[in-house]
Amino acid sequence: MYALKGHIINAPRPGTVEITENGYLLIGDGDIIGIYPELPEKYSGTHIIDYGDKLIMQSFCDMHLHAPQYPMLGLGMDLPLLEWLKTYTFKTEANFSDNEYAKTVYSQLARELVDNGTTRVCMFSSVHTDATLLLMNELERVGIIGYVGKVNMDQNSDPCIEETTEASKSETLRWLNGCEVFGKIKPILTPRFTPSCSPELLSWLGGIARERNLRVQSHLSENLSEMDWVRQLHPDCEQYWETYDKYGLFKENTVMAHCVHCDERERKAMKDRGVMVAHCPDSNINLASGIAPIRRMLDEGVKVALGSDIAGGAQIGMLDVISGAIRASKMKRIQSEWQLDFLSVAEGFYLGTTAGAKYFGFGDGFATGDMLHAIVVDDSSLCGSNKLSVRERFERCVYLAKKSNIEAVYSDGIKIK
Amino acid sequence: MYALKGHIINAPRPGTVEITENGYLLIGDGDIIGIYPELPEKYSGTHIIDYGDKLIMQSFCDMHLHAPQYPMLGLGMDLPLLEWLKTYTFKTEANFSDNEYAKTVYSQLARELVDNGTTRVCMFSSVHTDATLLLMNELERVGIIGYVGKVNMDQNSDPCIEETTEASKSETLRWLNGCEVFGKIKPILTPRFTPSCSPELLSWLGGIARERNLRVQSHLSENLSEMDWVRQLHPDCEQYWETYDKYGLFKENTVMAHCVHCDERERKAMKDRGVMVAHCPDSNINLASGIAPIRRMLDEGVKVALGSDIAGGAQIGMLDVISGAIRASKMKRIQSEWQLDFLSVAEGFYLGTTAGAKYFGFGDGFATGDMLHAIVVDDSSLCGSNKLSVRERFERCVYLAKKSNIEAVYSDGIKIK
Repeated sequence: MYALKGHIINAPRPGTVEITENGYLLIGDGDIIGIYPELPEKYSGTHIIDYGDKLIMQSFCDMHLHAPQYPMLGLGMDLPLLEWLKTYTFKTEANFSDNEYAKTVYSQLARELVDNGTTRVCMFSSVHTDATLLLMNELERVGIIGYVGKVNMDQNSDPCIEETTEASKSETLRWLNGCEVFGKIKPILTPRFTPSCSPELLSWLGGIARERNLRVQSHLSENLSEMDWVRQLHPDCEQYWETYDKYGLFKENTVMAHCVHCDERERKAMKDRGVMVAHCPDSNINLASGIAPIRRMLDEGVKVALGSDIAGGAQIGMLDVISGAIRASKMKRIQSEWQLDFLSVAEGFYLGTTAGAKYFGFGDGFATGDMLHAIVVDDSSLCGSNKLSVRERFERCVYLAKKSNIEAVYSDGIKIK
Repeated sequence: MYALKGHIINAPRPGTVEITENGYLLIGDGDIIGIYPELPEKYSGTHIIDYGDKLIMQSFCDMHLHAPQYPMLGLGMDLPLLEWLKTYTFKTEANFSDNEYAKTVYSQLARELVDNGTTRVCMFSSVHTDATLLLMNELERVGIIGYVGKVNMDQNSDPCIEETTEASKSETLRWLNGCEVFGKIKPILTPRFTPSCSPELLSWLGGIARERNLRVQSHLSENLSEMDWVRQLHPDCEQYWETYDKYGLFKENTVMAHCVHCDERERKAMKDRGVMVAHCPDSNINLASGIAPIRRMLDEGVKVALGSDIAGGAQIGMLDVISGAIRASKMKRIQSEWQLDFLSVAEGFYLGTTAGAKYFGFGDGFATGDMLHAIVVDDSSLCGSNKLSVRERFERCVYLAKKSNIEAVYSDGIKIK
């Protein structure tokens, strides 16, 4: 049993940030016992890790990122989605047929995620089975938990990376077998997006998802050209989501990245089926895809969390993604002639922490009984010498803190940085 | 005489980035002699500062920032412009009646600008004469060049910071006298914005600007509520710019920050009079003001450069401002139903360097005869292990490099970091 002492910042509900100054976050067997302004008498002998004037916050959940695109972070941003995929992405991902290369990059990536305070992920790998298993191993080794998917793509991509339908199936099975050794990193079925999967492959994946009770992740309604293409490929489907739905892939705990152009009907389908939106504001703007109607989704009760979407997004740190989501919501407000409300700092923080955590079975904020996922932020080097309240310091961190300010990271009750 | 050796990146024209790999940037008496792929025979004995595989780029120009708002960076971002001014800004600026406090903050700010590679500024101080002189002194001391203005405001603000008309005039004269000791930091007249200055004060400032041949900076058409207010205050003026123009303040080398809602007629007035737009994308989005039509301005021949606008903008590093301008232009593209083109990485970099430098009398990029203003970027710690071209590394730096990557900074031919 131990207690973290410091200013504890907790976002249990959208728009609510609870602050316990000089408080105690009490942990037993890795699980949260509670937050206390003063340590109760019965815990008086507890080992205290004193972070002094620093901020103790929930750690982050990155609900959409492409591990093999890490080496191309910040590149090709002058191109729109489909050209960007052809010029950079497929070629970069093809390098992961080399296991040594994969191990080097994924080891760096895993470390970078931890250093940025991301402890829970929902992640795309590439088509490569061995590299995917190496990725899962690296994540597990550094203490990150979550889901990773070997990508399936048997059409409309690039010869350097495309699989045959048969190979896609057999490699998926080999990958699923290989996943059994992992404890906290689990497999998730990952058809890249509708255009890159044949109906036969989608149908087979739907069958596997049902038989083995596996979760699914993919992309939805990111870009208008992509949506036109999907309509041509599946003329029987009125909307994009139905191309997943008809194969049993649009279901409870399916994660759909982007959802920029989802109209009311598509949003309702997500809500009804329990699909989660991984909102990736930086990527959607970099690729000039559009801005997802997050305020409407939240009002309608659609599940939304945040993703860095590296390398469509250029920022791997979730604080940058949170401030990016806030900025995107303000753009959406402008675009709506100031009708739609923007995301407050508290709402943005919730989307980057608790909203994603629920996908992994966690409760509201630092919830009693949950394994501890937390970061400790030292903001003493940040600008200005005014005396600020803890709430102001929290707000400033969302905009200004970098990985160098993240002094400690806890994942599943263990200190991993 | 000395030469910087490394990969030299030069943006002489909008959209053009010239790269000289393993080149020499030759400097004599602080002035640029030229860029050479190989050092010419006649310079063979020159002292070479070898930056190896690092990138040597132009340093940045920040054309709009509020020095006394530095302590509130990242705060109050959930508020719109006029509320944000009342709740945070005026109160924060009022602290600068304390000279000791001013000296401490401005010393930090000057250092932070240098560390981020900003060597030329066009800056607002507060109403305080002594603090403004302290600010100018701190900037000069660290080697930054440019313009700083004591703010004038004699109405519609907050008692904690408002001046009487008479005091505003007399303090402006006292400040101008005090500026005579500075070499490379010059005064610029700074009516805060139309609502905060009486017609009498604006008229007096116009007279001083003419008599002493002084430049002017202010704000223009940032926010729709602000524009309504200006219309009520000056019913004789059809548009906001005319409230400056009628007092002789809208002229060659006037810098107008924001210009978010300038229509064709207002843009034409800026072009005709040689007014420069300081585009502050981060601020305009944080305060949900709108997105300035930069592509149209550039097409129409209006002078545009970039400003961080701290603390409406939360990022002081101009690389962040450049990538923010690119993102804002992509939002504008989305908002225009994909009609307006976005800013490329090369265009964004030009706006953050050469476009601003021209305001201070510099030529195109690393122009022969100009004093050297440069940064050296060590990007070796940035993600990924792929072999990238220098052009790709440059592009990646715009999105990913932080002040910690800026290894050296030269201003007016002198190494200041």
